[in-house]
Amino acid sequence: MQESDLRKSVAELLVIRASGHLFDSQRLYPQWELNNKELKRLLEIGVGGVILFGGSTHEVEQRSKTLKSWAGKPLLLCADVEEGLGQRFQGGTWLVPPLAVGQIHRKDPAKAIELAKNYGVCTGFQARMCGLNWILAPVCDINNNPNNPVINMRAWGEDPVTVSALIHSFNRGLASQGVLTCAKHFPGHGDTCIDSHLGLPILDHDLNRLKEFEFLPFKAAITSGVDSVMSAHVLLPNIDSKYPATVSPKILNLLRENLFFDGLVVTDALIMESITKTYGSSEAALMAFAAGADLLMMPENPDDVIDAICESLLSGRVPLQRLDQALHRRKKVLSKFEASTPKLTSDKVHNDLHEIERDWDRNLAEELISYSIKLPHQVVLGENYDGINMVRVDSVLPCPFLTPVAPALSVPQEAGYRSVLSHQLGIDPWQDDPENPLALDRFGKGSFFVQLFVRGHPFRGALDNQEPWLAAIKQLQRQNRLSGLVVYGNPYLWDELLPFLNSSVAVAYSPGQMPAAQRQVLNSLFQKRNLKKGFQSQQNFEFTD
Amino acid sequence: MQESDLRKSVAELLVIRASGHLFDSQRLYPQWELNNKELKRLLEIGVGGVILFGGSTHEVEQRSKTLKSWAGKPLLLCADVEEGLGQRFQGGTWLVPPLAVGQIHRKDPAKAIELAKNYGVCTGFQARMCGLNWILAPVCDINNNPNNPVINMRAWGEDPVTVSALIHSFNRGLASQGVLTCAKHFPGHGDTCIDSHLGLPILDHDLNRLKEFEFLPFKAAITSGVDSVMSAHVLLPNIDSKYPATVSPKILNLLRENLFFDGLVVTDALIMESITKTYGSSEAALMAFAAGADLLMMPENPDDVIDAICESLLSGRVPLQRLDQALHRRKKVLSKFEASTPKLTSDKVHNDLHEIERDWDRNLAEELISYSIKLPHQVVLGENYDGINMVRVDSVLPCPFLTPVAPALSVPQEAGYRSVLSHQLGIDPWQDDPENPLALDRFGKGSFFVQLFVRGHPFRGALDNQEPWLAAIKQLQRQNRLSGLVVYGNPYLWDELLPFLNSSVAVAYSPGQMPAAQRQVLNSLFQKRNLKKGFQSQQNFEFTD
Repeated sequence: MQESDLRKSVAELLVIRASGHLFDSQRLYPQWELNNKELKRLLEIGVGGVILFGGSTHEVEQRSKTLKSWAGKPLLLCADVEEGLGQRFQGGTWLVPPLAVGQIHRKDPAKAIELAKNYGVCTGFQARMCGLNWILAPVCDINNNPNNPVINMRAWGEDPVTVSALIHSFNRGLASQGVLTCAKHFPGHGDTCIDSHLGLPILDHDLNRLKEFEFLPFKAAITSGVDSVMSAHVLLPNIDSKYPATVSPKILNLLRENLFFDGLVVTDALIMESITKTYGSSEAALMAFAAGADLLMMPENPDDVIDAICESLLSGRVPLQRLDQALHRRKKVLSKFEASTPKLTSDKVHNDLHEIERDWDRNLAEELISYSIKLPHQVVLGENYDGINMVRVDSVLPCPFLTPVAPALSVPQEAGYRSVLSHQLGIDPWQDDPENPLALDRFGKGSFFVQLFVRGHPFRGALDNQEPWLAAIKQLQRQNRLSGLVVYGNPYLWDELLPFLNSSVAVAYSPGQMPAAQRQVLNSLFQKRNLKKGFQSQQNFEFTD
Repeated sequence: MQESDLRKSVAELLVIRASGHLFDSQRLYPQWELNNKELKRLLEIGVGGVILFGGSTHEVEQRSKTLKSWAGKPLLLCADVEEGLGQRFQGGTWLVPPLAVGQIHRKDPAKAIELAKNYGVCTGFQARMCGLNWILAPVCDINNNPNNPVINMRAWGEDPVTVSALIHSFNRGLASQGVLTCAKHFPGHGDTCIDSHLGLPILDHDLNRLKEFEFLPFKAAITSGVDSVMSAHVLLPNIDSKYPATVSPKILNLLRENLFFDGLVVTDALIMESITKTYGSSEAALMAFAAGADLLMMPENPDDVIDAICESLLSGRVPLQRLDQALHRRKKVLSKFEASTPKLTSDKVHNDLHEIERDWDRNLAEELISYSIKLPHQVVLGENYDGINMVRVDSVLPCPFLTPVAPALSVPQEAGYRSVLSHQLGIDPWQDDPENPLALDRFGKGSFFVQLFVRGHPFRGALDNQEPWLAAIKQLQRQNRLSGLVVYGNPYLWDELLPFLNSSVAVAYSPGQMPAAQRQVLNSLFQKRNLKKGFQSQQNFEFTD
């Protein structure tokens, strides 16, 4: 093989990151998202995959076409849309987190299995409609550690049986739409309490434990024909005392020899600190490739990775078969996609608006919400012109579920409440008193309707857990100033707070944080006459910015 | 004429509102932006104009095509892009407010005239590239009242000579790109201190005063060939004691008989409270039509307006000539657009990315910023790991100039400052002490770098003026806790604060609030070694949401 051909072949194994938006100026994370000039150059030298974040589905549709034309060959175009296209792309359907389906499974397994399949159909259909061919799901991790900051609600359940059953069904739904799928994060990232974006989690499990527990969902995914498996950046000293899974030949081999998986192995993002801290991004990519990974996700410097791998192949440090094997698997999976003929025709809604969301999708999203919300007290809220609608979110820049007309703001406002937003960059609502942690003088008089948008997020670590919400709720109840509480997201926080909530308080839980979930919850908690008023609150009167 | 033809003809006079986004779910103001089904129906019954808000330029391009195909005939497609396409549409160029050019005109009139022309070329070119044919600019109001809450920085100056010179040049730049233009808000909205979105401003001027002052920029616009004039919702009792300009035959006639304007007269938005409170939206539309307006902007209920006007024509309350006249003017203006052949070819950048911003546009935006920022003290800021970067904005949901990587956050953070965002929905930073209005205990220890994003906005009335910034600045200086201050926007606030700022404080003013303006200002105020660090602060480390 000529050196230039070798470079082209190696480049095929890389998956680089791009914004789904069309213009460089629209990128939300310009430090991680390549500009168009760089993207074009890398695709022209042979890079074989792109992962997209952000933008509308219409933009992604255009984007996919552009990227393919730059590459001049079939590409792997993927997205991290574990919770439906709407999780990342405007105009797509945003579904409740998988853990909500796991909760439904406890009460009604058959319904949950059906919902999981439809979840996959919805996601696969919409992905394909906007030109994506590879979905980075299902998450096969078992969230048996409530303090897991990064997997958390992304998991389909807390035990292997639930997760296996649901991801099997979900994966079949996805595959029915002709898109490629990805089981993650091998050998299991559920039992950690460190965010691998920030540090390296260590798991004490031996092979027997993995076989009996962590491996089961991966087995189910493989049985249901999953096309790829993503490695985790976790260290399992009982299996490989030195190398984290992503760069461990021993652990990646388990996938081949123990689980008989012959599809693509892809690394988790190679810019994550857990791996870059020790090895650097390029060395980690080379090690992963040598250890058996076929595709290298989001390396910090793609050119360096191509150089390093070419050098290792030419010098014999890594045998050329490794490259052939990876290229062969990639080709096989891509040709499976090219040959797929999903039944799109009858459902097709791709009209002159370039809509990809069908009534069927919208109904599914609403059904998932209504099956997953909890309303334990029968307390209804009325008008309250002294009320404080305290909304806690992680970040407002941006906050995809908090638009100017989000029900979390507009519904309480229509009932007279004054909204106060609490977020990471805002003035701190806390004071230094463990019994009375909320600095109530910063809010003025009136009773509180508290809405907590809390869930594990990559990069935030256990940040959420540091806020003393139980003490704050007790403080408000002692002072007779709590009229309502909604938790959107984290079920463990909900479980912690519920036993302490007075029966006179209007309370609710929703795993989903999206506006549709807010609407269902608040329609139940507030009297309808308030809702019918329409948009009369100050916030909503404006018609321009 | 058959009644169905009459309805179609009347419908042509309406301009209805739509989101620039493609999908109903993406609308930011769903109470004001028609859904697609309604839009399609109204275009099919003959509605002749659409005003677009929001979305990316790529979406607007697609949107324009869709709307035209629904209408099946030439449409007036307009936008309120007084400050460049980027003011409303992502991917377009966002220029400093016109008042900044007015300030440049004081120092260097020739440069300002040149910049105003280029301002028009940039806006017209980009509008045309995304399918818009009618720009709702130039603003011809003279902002001689610093307390004007709604015109404010949208005006090209504070005196008739400056405004006339600049809008003449700007309008020629716009027209050179083949788009239609609109002088507003007749007979002049600069000398008011009430926001006509909220209440009806009353102006005490008589005809002589108007002729000597307010009319001059309109004359200049008409001389430079402006295609339409927008009426103001203001009452001038000395001219018409009963009817506000929009519905006053006397005032609209001045335009024809005194200023010899024979183009289109369009109303300001008919959903604005100043007009709907007294007349209701449909009655106001009918009255405006009867008074001489040719086009009716954003009526609340388009069907009712069509009914009311048809009835008045059939009953003879309004003569049929009024309709013929309006239709004739609309046709004439539209055919001027159809016949225009702007010199797009050489500058065309419409590549596979659908970019509409050229290097030329970017350079113009940067040049306008660098000519308009003020840096009176030579104080440079260094690292400060106790520092508080207090950023005051109106609203964070959404805040178009405050992205997660906005320089207003990232630059001070790279120098060690901790950002605290103050906004309408956040916890109040104020306490009830006129001498010490800032509740400093809510911020923790450390010195403040204060960034005030303040300017008049429709709907906000004089809200900005209610915050005691002068007292707050004095308070911080007394306590030796002010390290820097930047005002982005309102020049009057800047003029008020500057005399009181110690020479040891790093200070700056920028009329523009966009990220490019933040970058220029903060690159000057902070030492470069801090800027070169790259994205290391907590906020910017994240690579996903």
